[in-house]
Amino acid sequence: MLYRGFLLFCCVSTMLAQPAARKLRVISFGAHPDDCDYRAGGTAAKFARLGHQVKFVALTNGDAGHQSEGGGALARRRRAEAQEAGRRLGIASYEVLDNHDGELLPTLPVRHQVIRRIREWNADIVLAPRPWDYHPDHRYTGAVVQDAAYMVVVPNVCPDTPALRKNPVFLYHEDEFQRPNPFRPDVAIDIDDTFEAKVSAFDAHVSQMYEWGPFLDDALASVPKDPVARREWLRKGWFSGPPAPAVLKALEKWYGPRAQTIRHAEAFEVCEYGHRPTEQELRELFPFLPQTK
Amino acid sequence: MLYRGFLLFCCVSTMLAQPAARKLRVISFGAHPDDCDYRAGGTAAKFARLGHQVKFVALTNGDAGHQSEGGGALARRRRAEAQEAGRRLGIASYEVLDNHDGELLPTLPVRHQVIRRIREWNADIVLAPRPWDYHPDHRYTGAVVQDAAYMVVVPNVCPDTPALRKNPVFLYHEDEFQRPNPFRPDVAIDIDDTFEAKVSAFDAHVSQMYEWGPFLDDALASVPKDPVARREWLRKGWFSGPPAPAVLKALEKWYGPRAQTIRHAEAFEVCEYGHRPTEQELRELFPFLPQTK
Amino acid sequence: MLYRGFLLFCCVSTMLAQPAARKLRVISFGAHPDDCDYRAGGTAAKFARLGHQVKFVALTNGDAGHQSEGGGALARRRRAEAQEAGRRLGIASYEVLDNHDGELLPTLPVRHQVIRRIREWNADIVLAPRPWDYHPDHRYTGAVVQDAAYMVVVPNVCPDTPALRKNPVFLYHEDEFQRPNPFRPDVAIDIDDTFEAKVSAFDAHVSQMYEWGPFLDDALASVPKDPVARREWLRKGWFSGPPAPAVLKALEKWYGPRAQTIRHAEAFEVCEYGHRPTEQELRELFPFLPQTK
Amino acid sequence: MLYRGFLLFCCVSTMLAQPAARKLRVISFGAHPDDCDYRAGGTAAKFARLGHQVKFVALTNGDAGHQSEGGGALARRRRAEAQEAGRRLGIASYEVLDNHDGELLPTLPVRHQVIRRIREWNADIVLAPRPWDYHPDHRYTGAVVQDAAYMVVVPNVCPDTPALRKNPVFLYHEDEFQRPNPFRPDVAIDIDDTFEAKVSAFDAHVSQMYEWGPFLDDALASVPKDPVARREWLRKGWFSGPPAPAVLKALEKWYGPRAQTIRHAEAFEVCEYGHRPTEQELRELFPFLPQTK
Amino acid sequence: MLYRGFLLFCCVSTMLAQPAARKLRVISFGAHPDDCDYRAGGTAAKFARLGHQVKFVALTNGDAGHQSEGGGALARRRRAEAQEAGRRLGIASYEVLDNHDGELLPTLPVRHQVIRRIREWNADIVLAPRPWDYHPDHRYTGAVVQDAAYMVVVPNVCPDTPALRKNPVFLYHEDEFQRPNPFRPDVAIDIDDTFEAKVSAFDAHVSQMYEWGPFLDDALASVPKDPVARREWLRKGWFSGPPAPAVLKALEKWYGPRAQTIRHAEAFEVCEYGHRPTEQELRELFPFLPQTK
Amino acid sequence: MLYRGFLLFCCVSTMLAQPAARKLRVISFGAHPDDCDYRAGGTAAKFARLGHQVKFVALTNGDAGHQSEGGGALARRRRAEAQEAGRRLGIASYEVLDNHDGELLPTLPVRHQVIRRIREWNADIVLAPRPWDYHPDHRYTGAVVQDAAYMVVVPNVCPDTPALRKNPVFLYHEDEFQRPNPFRPDVAIDIDDTFEAKVSAFDAHVSQMYEWGPFLDDALASVPKDPVARREWLRKGWFSGPPAPAVLKALEKWYGPRAQTIRHAEAFEVCEYGHRPTEQELRELFPFLPQTK
Repeated sequence: MLYRGFLLFCCVSTMLAQPAARKLRVISFGAHPDDCDYRAGGTAAKFARLGHQVKFVALTNGDAGHQSEGGGALARRRRAEAQEAGRRLGIASYEVLDNHDGELLPTLPVRHQVIRRIREWNADIVLAPRPWDYHPDHRYTGAVVQDAAYMVVVPNVCPDTPALRKNPVFLYHEDEFQRPNPFRPDVAIDIDDTFEAKVSAFDAHVSQMYEWGPFLDDALASVPKDPVARREWLRKGWFSGPPAPAVLKALEKWYGPRAQTIRHAEAFEVCEYGHRPTEQELRELFPFLPQTK
Repeated sequence: MLYRGFLLFCCVSTMLAQPAARKLRVISFGAHPDDCDYRAGGTAAKFARLGHQVKFVALTNGDAGHQSEGGGALARRRRAEAQEAGRRLGIASYEVLDNHDGELLPTLPVRHQVIRRIREWNADIVLAPRPWDYHPDHRYTGAVVQDAAYMVVVPNVCPDTPALRKNPVFLYHEDEFQRPNPFRPDVAIDIDDTFEAKVSAFDAHVSQMYEWGPFLDDALASVPKDPVARREWLRKGWFSGPPAPAVLKALEKWYGPRAQTIRHAEAFEVCEYGHRPTEQELRELFPFLPQTK
Repeated sequence: MLYRGFLLFCCVSTMLAQPAARKLRVISFGAHPDDCDYRAGGTAAKFARLGHQVKFVALTNGDAGHQSEGGGALARRRRAEAQEAGRRLGIASYEVLDNHDGELLPTLPVRHQVIRRIREWNADIVLAPRPWDYHPDHRYTGAVVQDAAYMVVVPNVCPDTPALRKNPVFLYHEDEFQRPNPFRPDVAIDIDDTFEAKVSAFDAHVSQMYEWGPFLDDALASVPKDPVARREWLRKGWFSGPPAPAVLKALEKWYGPRAQTIRHAEAFEVCEYGHRPTEQELRELFPFLPQTK
Repeated sequence: MLYRGFLLFCCVSTMLAQPAARKLRVISFGAHPDDCDYRAGGTAAKFARLGHQVKFVALTNGDAGHQSEGGGALARRRRAEAQEAGRRLGIASYEVLDNHDGELLPTLPVRHQVIRRIREWNADIVLAPRPWDYHPDHRYTGAVVQDAAYMVVVPNVCPDTPALRKNPVFLYHEDEFQRPNPFRPDVAIDIDDTFEAKVSAFDAHVSQMYEWGPFLDDALASVPKDPVARREWLRKGWFSGPPAPAVLKALEKWYGPRAQTIRHAEAFEVCEYGHRPTEQELRELFPFLPQTK
Repeated sequence: MLYRGFLLFCCVSTMLAQPAARKLRVISFGAHPDDCDYRAGGTAAKFARLGHQVKFVALTNGDAGHQSEGGGALARRRRAEAQEAGRRLGIASYEVLDNHDGELLPTLPVRHQVIRRIREWNADIVLAPRPWDYHPDHRYTGAVVQDAAYMVVVPNVCPDTPALRKNPVFLYHEDEFQRPNPFRPDVAIDIDDTFEAKVSAFDAHVSQMYEWGPFLDDALASVPKDPVARREWLRKGWFSGPPAPAVLKALEKWYGPRAQTIRHAEAFEVCEYGHRPTEQELRELFPFLPQTK
Repeated sequence: MLYRGFLLFCCVSTMLAQPAARKLRVISFGAHPDDCDYRAGGTAAKFARLGHQVKFVALTNGDAGHQSEGGGALARRRRAEAQEAGRRLGIASYEVLDNHDGELLPTLPVRHQVIRRIREWNADIVLAPRPWDYHPDHRYTGAVVQDAAYMVVVPNVCPDTPALRKNPVFLYHEDEFQRPNPFRPDVAIDIDDTFEAKVSAFDAHVSQMYEWGPFLDDALASVPKDPVARREWLRKGWFSGPPAPAVLKALEKWYGPRAQTIRHAEAFEVCEYGHRPTEQELRELFPFLPQTK
């Protein structure tokens, strides 16, 4: 199936006709019911506050993510936590698919779940992890979203769900892995204004933040009992570092000198397999970026 | 299974004894019944004109590649288009395997299909896409040909088809993707003399060039009705650009100063998983390259 | 499942409390019953001589690795060869799993085999090939060990085998492949003192070294009949070259000026998906490296 | 998991408390978007006319069922035909799942699709083909509904969809196959009053009744062009025979002497894997059966 | 592979040379960690008391069998319950394989698990459910043990585990399903003397007998708190009925007139796919049957 | 997909127009390269002698069927044996597919292999084992041929191979298994005139008849060395029994009183999933049956 070369001579009209008025539709995929929050929670809250439609999708139900709970009971607990996290971020939807945690593979059934979610959301922007990450579920989430990237426009695939007529922009979540190639922050977002909402969303994942994660780090004893104290503990543990050097550089590109004052940021890399936006399109897709005139 | 290190001390005799007289056997794999044409059609025609044996193989039957047709009927239409394209290129065979379009995965059955095709063709050269590409079928075509690369010499694998005694040279088709690493044009071929045959082969894929592709680009209305006009439209749409900078550089390496005059080229990257040819072997394998004395 | 970020604020106590007294536990995965020997045999023998526990695991039974034998009979022959090779290296265990040679895929059942082996061995160090290699079984061994890397600490995965409380250090075997990125020798080991044991282990794989390998290289006639002579022939064929330039550089980093005198070395790259050791930790994990005071 | 034996001592309260007032919920599974119509269309219409909720589910999208069409386009055509057929029967829902026609296997993903449909419908009655039938899709529909039969009450399976607290009654559609054992009509329904609706539903499947089916029987030329005539042709072709002898006997059991006057009937066999109804429960579940006082 | 016909002319020597002295080796497969107990617990205890070696194997870890627990934690709880049940029966081993409950399929990896268990146990007798049962895990346990039945003697299958030289006798557990054909009690065993051990083994499965099972039957409130009372409740609930008529008839065949006094029995059907024992061999294999002189 | 009912009113013209002149096309599937010989070798030879076209297909390559050989080498040996056996029977083709022995499952790729073979052979008659048999490969051969039975007429399935316009008659090979239902000899063939050819075909499978089979029965020592003697030994061992009682009855039906004199017979059961022949059609399909006038 040939496709790309064709674009060379097609007169591509502006992708977004009236950016100011337009409501954007954003969908973010993660492997587990807290992954999107960590990598895109602040940006999602920014979209939501401007009235755009944001949906998070966890490809697994998280039923392996605990030291002493598991199965359907844990899945139901985590679904409820995800709902609460979504509420705190102000996003329109947080869907948790019912695939086993720790067993995700880039199969056709999972690919089709992704294709249908993107189409049904009529997404302008699709976010997902890169296929390079420490957790196999994360890697295969990245792989399967890549596998869906072009297919969302092919009507013969998943014919029960009308195909999109335009390929969305696909962007990768930030990560710190270097092999086979490091994450490249094509766009970086100042989330200082929604940072508390992000921490609050994190705080909603009680099973993860205050039980399973600390267990893994042999730090259960250090988790404060008091709700306020433990949220503070959470903020400090997860978010006390500055942006990575490459992200800082990207912030400078997009925000100019004031980048130095930004304390919390999220960054994204354009995936080559979806629509490849111009810089101007990126400004339209992330309308809270400083707009050039 | 250890293998490579052994080569360090084996006295490898020249791979090709009498290059001048020898008929080369070339096989190219694509995901769909037009992919090989785009990436290797001009080179294939050059081989064919010199009397070498070229075979194209599409790993899927293309049954998803249309906005309003599909299934077996579309597969049959595309098989006929492929046959016609092969005829126009002058190649010996254009085989379309009957796997579903849009559902290719690097499974053992598909790997075995590839192994058998390479062995039966007794290939000197195997061409395929890289496993990095916008279309999952393309990526998995690359992956599955990689998976076959060494196995073609192992008699216990697919024992019904005699194993090759020498590993062919595997080369990747050109693409423009940068992640995780860009295509590296190890060899670049001037196809100006067969360019019209390549356009003509493209023109044979009516369902793709004049229906499905333009539909995807919202350009159906711009497709000329007149056969001559639409072929011109096709040529301009797909092939009006110059070679990529890296390809141009490779042309200079292989063709010297006259590279600047070359308007159409195809390029290939040596895959590390097959036999790794010396520069001299590459000249013997692509006998239309300027030969050093 | 979030995990990594958490480490940023946890006070990680020294990983290895009493390095001097401690017995290390090392496990190395290969695709076939000779792969570990080639990439880690010398290092394994060094560990073993110091009283550390080393286990080699071949993920396939090698039943395709011969020109005229195959199936269960060949698998049994190769298992016996592996046992003998393990004996010659002095390692504690050489396990050969019963998956078909030439058909390995990174499935959940194989992943679980790997997870259980790592846990049962209570490994400090896990060695495996990178997922880039000429042989698909090698690549998928790399992939499936990556897929196990984090999962060894998750109790809900393979709950019949107690999860580790600390993620081991995962390291890749050396290889010479360049795409998508070359092997990076994070640590390099002088194996001159165990080199003869490594050659001897190689020599135990009679079916591979003196039958199948030479057959592949059309060199059967050159294999000496005499046991002493053929071992010499083996040594020369496989191990006569100097360390690769990057490995030499790594030797210089770890051994200082005396690196120039090292004739045989093995090198490893830290995998980002397991525990990421500091340089000091690497010295503790490879106690035969020169220790800084 | 033990379950059945337990029932021996449990005091089972009457399954249906107030049969008269209660609205029953019926779901029928077929392989293709016309299978339920043929085997249960008349009964479904009877349920619907009494205000009960009936849903038909086709497990495949029918994209192989035509001599010259196929793929997504055919799937969409057949989905529309199914909607129209459902409308003519008066049932509440006709869902067509997007699995390939001719490729259905009893996999876990398909099983989970079935479990969720039964739970979401909160079904009292589940209808499906037996796993013995000429078409593999029919057989595997039967197998996969069997595989779901007990699982609908297990909360740890598909935990995103609340489990039923009572196992529905599962019944098989009638068929004429004798091996390994013939269909046993445990209940038979007089459908003379809804027979025309059933024929009308059949008539809605234009692609099947007037194109694909006649093609298979080499009878395309005999299909009348006139809508009224072709419906008559359809009625005669499909429904002119009397009930099978065993069904007639079942009609006598349930309807007494007036069974002889019944011209069209549908029959069902109780599946041992769901709740096993008493005769009284069957009367409550099929409230249009003559009620004993 | 031809095999059976051969037996027609082979002079088969008596299978069991010295029945009196010989220690029999019995292995029973169930889907979940209580299935074997229910269908063969009494017989197993009889074997054990005579010094024969009995092993129970659950093919799944039971991690779905509870209303509010699940995953690894439940699997560990059930493994411990199974160990305790095995202890109470006096059998040599109760192994719980780590496949997901509710997801068992007759795949090659599971088949190989079964083959290895039978070989390692060097079984004379293999017990398993029929492939007809209400629970899909039960059915597929039956199917996969059938799939292993002949393979245990083929050395090329699972070559890491020495093949048996004689096919064991395979027998099905009793069940009450009628389709496609009812269970046929080829042999029936009086278990009155081990009945209390069987009840005691049942009682060890606390999660199943007093939590999950009663939940399914809406009978949680009726479970006594007192350990003695609840065991009595268990005995009454599960085992108060008389043997099924066909089993009673089999008891008469094997025990003669005293069959009428037997209150608890277990019955087995000879599977045609293993060695087919003569009546005399059955007496030797079940040495607690009345022996003919 | 509805199909069968349609036949009720279609005027089916005689299936075989000119039986006398017509050359029949027969294809038989077995799991291993000797299964067809045993169950249909005599009948195949009769067809062949009358000039009809017969093809045997083994779905696996038999690479597990030996005590000391295996893999590709054994597969090649058995392919050669099959070729020789086919030659001795006089049939047109004996194809051995390259699936692993002992690992056959009724997957879609294998189903498609079967569909293509039946179509390419343009078969009138398809023979295969029942899905009830001691060897899993035999059972799954039966299952997968059933799965192909209707699909051979559907053009959208395997669209690269033109669909048949008429469904062949499918018949099962004879076997002796009783559960869930015994084999029913719908037609029985006197093969006394081709019996020696059948024995001779058997004799060609040296690896099976004189090595692997006797090994399984602990009878290796009893195999004569002399070629003539061992063939006699083979004949006696495999074929000394009379036809089974049900087959004898079938012979009487088809041959009348002379059935008593028939010493060797083969029998077949009509599969309900293909075309269901009338008695007259069966006589036309087996033209060596006594013809009624």
